Amino acid sequence: MTQLEHAKKGNITSEMKIVSQQEKVKEGDLIERIARGEVIIPKNLRRSDLSVVGIGKGLRTKINTNIGTSPDLADIKYEIEKLKIAEKVGTDTVMDLSTGGDLDKIRRTIIKETHLPLGTVPIYQAAVESIAEEGNITRMNPDKIFEVIERQAEDGVDFMTVHCGLTLSSLERLKKEGRIDNIVSRGGAFLTTWMVFNERENPLYEQFDRLLELARKYDVTLSLGDGLRPGCIADSTDRAQIQELIILGELAQRALDAGVQVMIEGPGHIPFKEIEANILLEKKLCHNAPFYVLGPVVTDIAPGYDHITSAIGGSYAASVGADFLCYVTPGEHLRLPTIEDVREGVIAARIAAHVGDLSKNIKDAAEWDLKMAKSREKRNWKEQIDLSIDPEFARKMRDESKPKFKDVCTMCGEFCALKLVEKALKGEKPLILA
Amino acid sequence: MTQLEHAKKGNITSEMKIVSQQEKVKEGDLIERIARGEVIIPKNLRRSDLSVVGIGKGLRTKINTNIGTSPDLADIKYEIEKLKIAEKVGTDTVMDLSTGGDLDKIRRTIIKETHLPLGTVPIYQAAVESIAEEGNITRMNPDKIFEVIERQAEDGVDFMTVHCGLTLSSLERLKKEGRIDNIVSRGGAFLTTWMVFNERENPLYEQFDRLLELARKYDVTLSLGDGLRPGCIADSTDRAQIQELIILGELAQRALDAGVQVMIEGPGHIPFKEIEANILLEKKLCHNAPFYVLGPVVTDIAPGYDHITSAIGGSYAASVGADFLCYVTPGEHLRLPTIEDVREGVIAARIAAHVGDLSKNIKDAAEWDLKMAKSREKRNWKEQIDLSIDPEFARKMRDESKPKFKDVCTMCGEFCALKLVEKALKGEKPLILA
Repeated sequence: MTQLEHAKKGNITSEMKIVSQQEKVKEGDLIERIARGEVIIPKNLRRSDLSVVGIGKGLRTKINTNIGTSPDLADIKYEIEKLKIAEKVGTDTVMDLSTGGDLDKIRRTIIKETHLPLGTVPIYQAAVESIAEEGNITRMNPDKIFEVIERQAEDGVDFMTVHCGLTLSSLERLKKEGRIDNIVSRGGAFLTTWMVFNERENPLYEQFDRLLELARKYDVTLSLGDGLRPGCIADSTDRAQIQELIILGELAQRALDAGVQVMIEGPGHIPFKEIEANILLEKKLCHNAPFYVLGPVVTDIAPGYDHITSAIGGSYAASVGADFLCYVTPGEHLRLPTIEDVREGVIAARIAAHVGDLSKNIKDAAEWDLKMAKSREKRNWKEQIDLSIDPEFARKMRDESKPKFKDVCTMCGEFCALKLVEKALKGEKPLILA
Repeated sequence: MTQLEHAKKGNITSEMKIVSQQEKVKEGDLIERIARGEVIIPKNLRRSDLSVVGIGKGLRTKINTNIGTSPDLADIKYEIEKLKIAEKVGTDTVMDLSTGGDLDKIRRTIIKETHLPLGTVPIYQAAVESIAEEGNITRMNPDKIFEVIERQAEDGVDFMTVHCGLTLSSLERLKKEGRIDNIVSRGGAFLTTWMVFNERENPLYEQFDRLLELARKYDVTLSLGDGLRPGCIADSTDRAQIQELIILGELAQRALDAGVQVMIEGPGHIPFKEIEANILLEKKLCHNAPFYVLGPVVTDIAPGYDHITSAIGGSYAASVGADFLCYVTPGEHLRLPTIEDVREGVIAARIAAHVGDLSKNIKDAAEWDLKMAKSREKRNWKEQIDLSIDPEFARKMRDESKPKFKDVCTMCGEFCALKLVEKALKGEKPLILA
């Protein structure tokens, strides 16, 4: 039985117990939220030794790290290094988005190497194998998609992105809309190519029940992908995007009815002022299914800094209800991320998630800031460093610039405001004497 | 006459003409906004060869870069290097916050080296000189403050931070409030120390007319400083902060009446969900005087990444009406910024300002994103790099990871979504063939 089926029956699973304790949410509340489809616990029934993670309403905002090869850079060791740094700096989940090299081997190595929930986008492998076997993506047999999904499920993949809402009718809407950047989703692009040349409906939509059956068998959480997410500010919140979201909402309901855990993927490139409306729309159209957003990236003009543009959008999105943030690295729009790109991307996403948690009044979120504020007042530098989101990096920065007095920093030196005022308010003469 | 006095008379100055052209705002509208105190043009009457910058309602959001020595690190050449990198990556103004070394020499060197509007915090120099001359900040003669202000004005300083709202009564409110981090403003700390030990009112408040007279003489824009800005999330939007803001609003009105240009400085550490209320309060209490915010920094837990925490806060603040963003560097809370810290801080602040400009519908802001979106669709990499907020950095990132096909990047290689879909929608067979 899936976590959802258990919750519907009122059963508490060991995974629910863990999430309840981690998040300090009452077991009964958690079960209800899972049963309503507002919270998911992505864990393949075949997976053991998993660091269980709950995603959704009232829980800490989680973040995901994408790793994986491309045709241009297919080095499995390099990707494992990315996995390790992402784990070290605190990602909650990992997705293997490989499209280059031996895809089965890469995925199985990643599963062996991590205790974190693992996600994939099976259409990538279905497309890559079809190209290798049939000569072209357009010749892909729909059965190939489901065969790959089952192969990946058997390996223990916990959640899968499936672009089920990219239908012939949504593609028609896309064409009528007249976008600047039509489709920026790789999975969406593979499916579009196939659909256009075969003049056939998206198999993931047409055979959604078949997908549900597979997902239910392994308790694979479906991450309903947004193949039509806007790829630039000019295309944001357009008819094509919202059409796809409506369809995803319908499919999420079918998944919920079938006992299959589900979340919804969201944009993408969205200007700051449209973020709140986008979150509201997802929550309404998809009946509060957990929302998994990519960024949002709030401006197109900062390649090299898209960990920042997406931390801005992610902070806002999480503040108003997004549940799960996909990291974006500085390399986005420029290259496959490097190890350092991954590190910076994870930290930026964690900052955004925490900013959201402060807005959502998530348990212990404000407590963390309070501890830091108190150690600043005490000018306890060891504690400040230990409390930092990236202690190693904060320590390095401080060590590179040593102050004359150990209780301050080189920004103000002896003129430290906190130190001056502490003395003044105590009535002690300031130390600064000629 | 000051820019404000000219505007009140309906005169158009050459500076106003420049701002009108830069911002594509009608001259008449601009004059009215300046006359109402909603827009400022910080330019000392003694300053020549200035890159004129307008700040306020309906204009592009501007950013400021703080440079300057500390007692622990007083290297004038290093600070000039910071100035140069800040100019190169696009700061609009610069503030010299030096507190170490020969302060007159440093300031004069910076003025000689830059065409950008320059700001200072004269209480720093008044305090440092009083310590040197009198042995202690508590022995500072109030006349010293005004003497330093005039000395700096004579040098051509365009705007000055003056913490006039930090009064004995606001300090009482601070004590009653019971903060975690009492005062994090260096100027606020100098003044508080002096006020507490002398049991006397803040000279910048008590002798505000004297300050106005000096400011008017040189057309120095007053930046009414927030000595009581919150220094941590737990202290945000408290009675002490808002009390000071009320007083600043009253003083801004007096400045406006006296023909002195004025802006208001704002926090500081503010959680995301309180930013909109903070901007609204400033606009109401200070009658739409331009708002100059430091960040806001939306969480305390990310030392080493405070360019990101403040880009998040700055994006929101600018989106809802902040006019001028003071950059925060990765080094904030850890050290005097390095040259690389300055570069990253400026870029992050520029991103935030642009995000705000998209929200504010500032002329040409969305056009920039649209150009980028179009060059992405065309996969014109030269254009994408040239359009980037930091072309040099974007070029470096791409060059470090060369794709096999020149029209894509190593993220997706031949599986580039834009490329696949462009062909599919044109009815061309995809190139991917075995």
